[in-house]
Amino acid sequence: MQTLGAKLDHVSPGRVEISLIPRPEVSQQRGFVHAGAVSAIADTAAGYAALSMMPMDRGVLTTEFKINLLAPATGECIAARGRVVKAGRKLTLAQTEVFAQSGGKERLIALLTATLMAIEGRDGIAD
Amino acid sequence: MQTLGAKLDHVSPGRVEISLIPRPEVSQQRGFVHAGAVSAIADTAAGYAALSMMPMDRGVLTTEFKINLLAPATGECIAARGRVVKAGRKLTLAQTEVFAQSGGKERLIALLTATLMAIEGRDGIAD
Amino acid sequence: MQTLGAKLDHVSPGRVEISLIPRPEVSQQRGFVHAGAVSAIADTAAGYAALSMMPMDRGVLTTEFKINLLAPATGECIAARGRVVKAGRKLTLAQTEVFAQSGGKERLIALLTATLMAIEGRDGIAD
Amino acid sequence: MQTLGAKLDHVSPGRVEISLIPRPEVSQQRGFVHAGAVSAIADTAAGYAALSMMPMDRGVLTTEFKINLLAPATGECIAARGRVVKAGRKLTLAQTEVFAQSGGKERLIALLTATLMAIEGRDGIAD
Repeated sequence: MQTLGAKLDHVSPGRVEISLIPRPEVSQQRGFVHAGAVSAIADTAAGYAALSMMPMDRGVLTTEFKINLLAPATGECIAARGRVVKAGRKLTLAQTEVFAQSGGKERLIALLTATLMAIEGRDGIAD
Repeated sequence: MQTLGAKLDHVSPGRVEISLIPRPEVSQQRGFVHAGAVSAIADTAAGYAALSMMPMDRGVLTTEFKINLLAPATGECIAARGRVVKAGRKLTLAQTEVFAQSGGKERLIALLTATLMAIEGRDGIAD
Repeated sequence: MQTLGAKLDHVSPGRVEISLIPRPEVSQQRGFVHAGAVSAIADTAAGYAALSMMPMDRGVLTTEFKINLLAPATGECIAARGRVVKAGRKLTLAQTEVFAQSGGKERLIALLTATLMAIEGRDGIAD
Repeated sequence: MQTLGAKLDHVSPGRVEISLIPRPEVSQQRGFVHAGAVSAIADTAAGYAALSMMPMDRGVLTTEFKINLLAPATGECIAARGRVVKAGRKLTLAQTEVFAQSGGKERLIALLTATLMAIEGRDGIAD
């Protein structure tokens, strides 16, 4: 997340928001934030949402995710909102909506669904 | 790709290989390459594979992808091999296998399937 | 849908509900409704949701979908609720939640995300 | 599978082929085999491929799958070829290519990737 310049804006049980201010390092030629960076913050928001509902000694690893990229990632800020769809002891399903914010408005630019696996200890955590 | 330190190793029509030498900037606590970085090089390999079969004046955008993360991304080198499954005028389906190389051996660590949309000009290209 | 014994319970712009009463023909050994039948009603609910927001002379075809199967499909009724996430001229993203109803309660058993393509005429429609 | 009229043509360790002769019951208006039926045989081929590499006392359940539908399912026969991508003790990743056969030729019409979970006993098996 540090490499991307993203920051954690909000955490409550089962809900997380991560935001990213578009910079040249995470953008492609046209100035859109790169799909890889959008996916990374979306996956991270899903992971933290899952983590937020687990005991302190657990970590999570993404086992699979799917993302639909609906519109170019442009604007003043890219916000990824993750929420837990179903929490399980072993596997958690989470979903993240990614919005592009511009001039006080926001529009949905991506939707991610991820399966997260709980792991013992904080080792290997998908931070 | 520059931000991640990845490099393009091979391009032929419909096939592309991208590699990444694990560095702290793209890794999480345990030293595994972050899932976000694995996804980014896998998606990029799929995108370039699609692009390699198109006229020079076309670009591509990822419209959706799915990745299964099978094992931790550790080793001397992470290699993403993309290939076109079905090339279309508008939409191309591509797949990338990601391998972790270590001590002369390699093992499959991730499998990505992506839909790429052809776009006019080189604008907005998924680089 | 007829082959599966499913019925359309509700249609409003962007929202559709389809239900299925479990029968031996669509179940596996243990009496769970087969994953294939769950996927089929979930995909159909997404398709009708997309269709409900289009002009009368359009049809839809599923170009890709992803489903997470969270729990066995058992109970008195299986209800699939589809909604449009983002409607586009060419492509629509829709999502379906599938619930198993039993003793007045319901629990989420599957989540599907689908991309639907608009087609001219009603030919080839994903019914 | 019986409801769909599909049959198992080939099983070897890690590889399975299932075929379906198009009939009105599994087709939509235009005579294409319904996406739900294509998905069902593709998922089943992936499930049997996973099962073929497990001890006799194990069953499998699909936990998630993703399918890209590339072309209409028309022709004399629809053949789904499943293979294991990575076999694990708990989770197996499998992939199925679906072909439409017509006049001695075949073309790829769908690609499915599935995660299958091993279960104890033959209970709940995804047949």
